[in-house]
Amino acid sequence: MVNKTVTVPKGFFAAGVNCGLKQSGKPDLGLIVCPTGATAAAVFTTNKITSAAVKISKEHIKSTKIFAVVANSGCANACTGRQGIKYAIAMCAETATAAARRSPFVAHKNIDPHQVLVASTGIIGHQLPMEKITAGIVKAAKNLSASPSAGLNFAKAIMTTDTRAKQAVRKIKIQGKKGTIAGTVKGAGMIAPNMATTLCFITTDIAISKPLLAKALKNAIGNSLNKLTIDCHQSTNDTAIILASGLAKNQPIVTNSSQYKKFAKALTELCDCLARQMALDAEGATRMFKVVIKGAATKTDAKKAARAIADYPLVKCAIHGGDPNWGRIICAVGSVGVKLNPDKLTCKIGDITVFKNGSPKKFNPKKAGKVISQAEHTITVNLGAGKQNDFCYGCDLSKKYVTINADYHT
Amino acid sequence: MVNKTVTVPKGFFAAGVNCGLKQSGKPDLGLIVCPTGATAAAVFTTNKITSAAVKISKEHIKSTKIFAVVANSGCANACTGRQGIKYAIAMCAETATAAARRSPFVAHKNIDPHQVLVASTGIIGHQLPMEKITAGIVKAAKNLSASPSAGLNFAKAIMTTDTRAKQAVRKIKIQGKKGTIAGTVKGAGMIAPNMATTLCFITTDIAISKPLLAKALKNAIGNSLNKLTIDCHQSTNDTAIILASGLAKNQPIVTNSSQYKKFAKALTELCDCLARQMALDAEGATRMFKVVIKGAATKTDAKKAARAIADYPLVKCAIHGGDPNWGRIICAVGSVGVKLNPDKLTCKIGDITVFKNGSPKKFNPKKAGKVISQAEHTITVNLGAGKQNDFCYGCDLSKKYVTINADYHT
Repeated sequence: MVNKTVTVPKGFFAAGVNCGLKQSGKPDLGLIVCPTGATAAAVFTTNKITSAAVKISKEHIKSTKIFAVVANSGCANACTGRQGIKYAIAMCAETATAAARRSPFVAHKNIDPHQVLVASTGIIGHQLPMEKITAGIVKAAKNLSASPSAGLNFAKAIMTTDTRAKQAVRKIKIQGKKGTIAGTVKGAGMIAPNMATTLCFITTDIAISKPLLAKALKNAIGNSLNKLTIDCHQSTNDTAIILASGLAKNQPIVTNSSQYKKFAKALTELCDCLARQMALDAEGATRMFKVVIKGAATKTDAKKAARAIADYPLVKCAIHGGDPNWGRIICAVGSVGVKLNPDKLTCKIGDITVFKNGSPKKFNPKKAGKVISQAEHTITVNLGAGKQNDFCYGCDLSKKYVTINADYHT
Repeated sequence: MVNKTVTVPKGFFAAGVNCGLKQSGKPDLGLIVCPTGATAAAVFTTNKITSAAVKISKEHIKSTKIFAVVANSGCANACTGRQGIKYAIAMCAETATAAARRSPFVAHKNIDPHQVLVASTGIIGHQLPMEKITAGIVKAAKNLSASPSAGLNFAKAIMTTDTRAKQAVRKIKIQGKKGTIAGTVKGAGMIAPNMATTLCFITTDIAISKPLLAKALKNAIGNSLNKLTIDCHQSTNDTAIILASGLAKNQPIVTNSSQYKKFAKALTELCDCLARQMALDAEGATRMFKVVIKGAATKTDAKKAARAIADYPLVKCAIHGGDPNWGRIICAVGSVGVKLNPDKLTCKIGDITVFKNGSPKKFNPKKAGKVISQAEHTITVNLGAGKQNDFCYGCDLSKKYVTINADYHT
């Protein structure tokens, strides 16, 4: 099996352990350590209510170098007041101490807590059990390794209702030097732009300046995780972090060059791969779909129309039932106030045109039903109002989604 | 049993028959006739894709007097192109002829088709079977009666996935004269402002001018059906119609007087009663809830925040599970970009404060769970950002919603 974990790029060590947050005994606390210090960038939730972890990481990301990331699942540390903030700071401090102690993993024996990022996911409104967390950080630091299993344990440590670890890797050559980008993501519910409710951790050994790394990440997330909607709303904890160790020894990317574009493209592909994995593992989902909007008057309209279709419960139910019910698609598009030409409006399910220039078109419903029953398919709507396009990813709505979210008690 | 049908106000006759659109044999075509001609007003969907019926009724409502309303369920006559328009016009013409023929129901032997309103509901994208519809109109005209059963048959004829007829009646005295307002509504899915996806028909014998009738209707719907969201999106066919026969013989309401206010208040109460009935009969719903937003910076913010909570699948699932998961409520409020003060944000489930001034508050989860398990309860969120308030109605999300909408094939 191909190793796709965050320890593939040179210069990264990881660990994932159980510290008692998950009753199941599965990993719930993870570390990524970059002993040489990494150039880092991050994207955070735009929810006005942010977790303590997001608040602290927003500050710490300003550091020139980041040495470690600590993440936990099982408790979001959101809506937890001042106590929550103290705990998020404590997680960074504990990680700085534990990682620094773990020579040879850290070259500098001292790590400033500001050089550590923190991310939490899980239930909102509960305080972190700090004794367990602290013990977990110490245990994880002892387990730090560049092995595939260490990387996989990290991927597992961030999972909540995810049924499988989600990882991706891309090889890339920058000015003759071989490099790698690897990422892992969690998220199966409470998912919608911006950004898809998730924690996402990406590592790379490519050398690149902090501003360009930030630009590439923002662009990649914008075209991948931010295109995914599972249930309309974003969480309080969304965080995507990229760490670049620079150990590929390429001439650092410092301008908007062809090399930058190559890196940015690979990063976007990686994130797209992660977003699709999320859609397919969404809570209760049995299939995913891509909505493509063409002929919109503005980019905003295109985005809005795509989201309307992907968010519309009746479309999601129809797709779950394998039913090419295009009336619901048209209804969704019409309801969000985007400019459209009713006489030019056209809808395709896969390659099958079901509605053309404002009128229904005869089609083979069995064939269209088969398209819609696939694990991945595309719905295309042309608004006939302009030249702008956009897309987004969605998934079907099943009874299992309700079971998961009605029975997940606080 | 109290008679709550649209035939209670003086001057109205109704009928509901099966014309073959519903395989079950249940009523699927209904008529309301006002032989003396009614002052009329209507509110229509704001979806940019409107049904042929909506397009035609938008024209016909301009007539000074309306003599009849024809409505069918089982086929929406939406996304049906020019043919659909022809059919909607034909429905009005057939109704005008059939009703005029049915002396003594119509004083004038000639009704202009422009004096008939039409409404359709059901599946999108199919053409109406006009032979069946025409025969149904003739049959319904023969059955016209002011009896409670005739009124109830009309209420049944507009039902789609509704499990029960929804009706309400209000008595009112205008300047010493006794009058009545009665209404019926359908709608259980594809429900969201503006306006709640529905057909709504209201009759009254109060004499009132057309502009004031329109004003009162718009206000009443704005504070009732438009406050209801079941699954985020509005249909292509939403129509609310009010017909005023004037036979209560009150001095006509022609100014924004105290009498107008009395009428408007009664009409709003009637529509609120219908909206609650809809929420409780929503597809798969087992309970409904009211979201009250206080302390918003603007009215728009208050509305947006209320809708965010009521639309949020995770909140709807938690309520279905009887789980006072306030974290999801706070998350929903934060995600829609409304102004809020995180240090003053407060949330109440029923009378129980669960989150106060940005921090969790200890509460009895069993007690809160009981509140949330009631058929109707209220969630209150204070944004701490201003003085504006608003509310909306929502319902829980159950597995049955998915079953209904995944199995309802085209």
